[in-house]
Amino acid sequence: MSLLERVRACHGWRPEAYRPWTVGESVVGHVRHDLAARLGDFPEVFQVSDERVALRSGLDDFAARSAAVDAVVRQLAEAGAVGRYREEAYPVVPRWGDAPLFKMDRGAVPDFGVRGYGVHVNGLVEGPDGLKMWVGKRSMTKPTGAGKLDHLVAGGQPHGIGVFDNLIKEAAEEADLPEALARRSVPVGAVSYRCERAEGLRDDVLFCYDLVVPADFEPRNTDGEVDFFELWPMDKVAARLAETDDFKFNVALVIIEFMVRRGFIGPDDPDYMAIVDGMHLAA
Amino acid sequence: MSLLERVRACHGWRPEAYRPWTVGESVVGHVRHDLAARLGDFPEVFQVSDERVALRSGLDDFAARSAAVDAVVRQLAEAGAVGRYREEAYPVVPRWGDAPLFKMDRGAVPDFGVRGYGVHVNGLVEGPDGLKMWVGKRSMTKPTGAGKLDHLVAGGQPHGIGVFDNLIKEAAEEADLPEALARRSVPVGAVSYRCERAEGLRDDVLFCYDLVVPADFEPRNTDGEVDFFELWPMDKVAARLAETDDFKFNVALVIIEFMVRRGFIGPDDPDYMAIVDGMHLAA
Repeated sequence: MSLLERVRACHGWRPEAYRPWTVGESVVGHVRHDLAARLGDFPEVFQVSDERVALRSGLDDFAARSAAVDAVVRQLAEAGAVGRYREEAYPVVPRWGDAPLFKMDRGAVPDFGVRGYGVHVNGLVEGPDGLKMWVGKRSMTKPTGAGKLDHLVAGGQPHGIGVFDNLIKEAAEEADLPEALARRSVPVGAVSYRCERAEGLRDDVLFCYDLVVPADFEPRNTDGEVDFFELWPMDKVAARLAETDDFKFNVALVIIEFMVRRGFIGPDDPDYMAIVDGMHLAA
Repeated sequence: MSLLERVRACHGWRPEAYRPWTVGESVVGHVRHDLAARLGDFPEVFQVSDERVALRSGLDDFAARSAAVDAVVRQLAEAGAVGRYREEAYPVVPRWGDAPLFKMDRGAVPDFGVRGYGVHVNGLVEGPDGLKMWVGKRSMTKPTGAGKLDHLVAGGQPHGIGVFDNLIKEAAEEADLPEALARRSVPVGAVSYRCERAEGLRDDVLFCYDLVVPADFEPRNTDGEVDFFELWPMDKVAARLAETDDFKFNVALVIIEFMVRRGFIGPDDPDYMAIVDGMHLAA
């Protein structure tokens, strides 16, 4: 077991098992061949060939594309052919900073191999006995990563809300963080990866933040999604990461990014560049 | 002008102008076609085809490979066909952490498109009036980046010395940093890029460090390679970076990495992901 294994678990997919999903010239996702065949049943929305799934060209604005895709997603979700409908829309953007082409329900995002964005907050306490990190345990009822170890605050980035505003909202829901405290979160970079998981193809960018909380602050979950929070010394976090896969796969990646950034490992480690390169999707 | 332009200046090359240089199955560099033709004059060292330049297979240990390549490099340097011989050897490693296959003179590394490694130290002062960074001005006699703005400490990674030991050595030579102070440098990650420069194809990994120095510390150059050092507020550094190309191209990349890591820019900037992705070589 090693940190590098945790990093590698976030990468690797079989491109031959998928065909690209395109909107005009933009690739917006990757669809498994069996789902692609099924999408052929909706010729008013999808133009399916052996090479790709194309969104039909008449659908040429955000509202039309969103409505057409959503109608199909709802039918497929009811039929159990894609993930459970989550009632939360993700923006579909060819590149970060572009206007979204459309929105689609979060539950189907991995089925369509669409890039998802999220926010992850390293909750830190700096004290005389060293650096500690708040660790949460995900509820067994979570649709992904049930029972896994998690960040103080982490969540997907829905359509229609800024990244920092989303962080503030998630911080209140997941850990009962007062807004004034959550606003001290500092953006420190992003990790990205593409890998096959039970729920489908995860093609994610996670915006990473550090937040130093007061030593006497106690997070408290308010939405039932976290069983408990514990404050762990960094050496306990590092050992658990290296020796087990108890942390959710993408939480592990963000914490390893933190360890790289704060000098817990350095270039004299032969794995260093493989770990650093693994913080980002290989193009 | 923008930070993103500085990032983009570190990327982009024309693969069609080069052919790979291989040792066994490993690609160790990329050689311009005109230099490849010239290497055909040394059939005891290089096996040149239209597709690649291969190191001759009889050369099967570090010493044999290093000696054979060095003999050619010295002749080509004397003939002016590659960069000036620098009397400093770089290790040639297919992947960081591997044993070097051979070493070659630093002066020819960009001509052969070999990956070079370096260390860059952000020299920081944290005070009541905000964060400041030490900026050096490179001497007009430097073989690359003459007259450009630089880090407190930066240097190539030669063969046969550890990364951190090299940092200590460079810190003493370039900025007269006492060893005890230089040892406080914290590894914070690495940037990588491949781009065409006057000296050839730069395919570099730079190990980045942060070093907080006392407010009353004054760096002093001891090797004649720095004209002066100045302590700049971060907003002056950021403005000069965004508005000019006064910083050496790769120093700019490392300082922008620092700005990402310390929250000077965040995900609500539409350029954010393009900047973050530009910290690393696209595979």
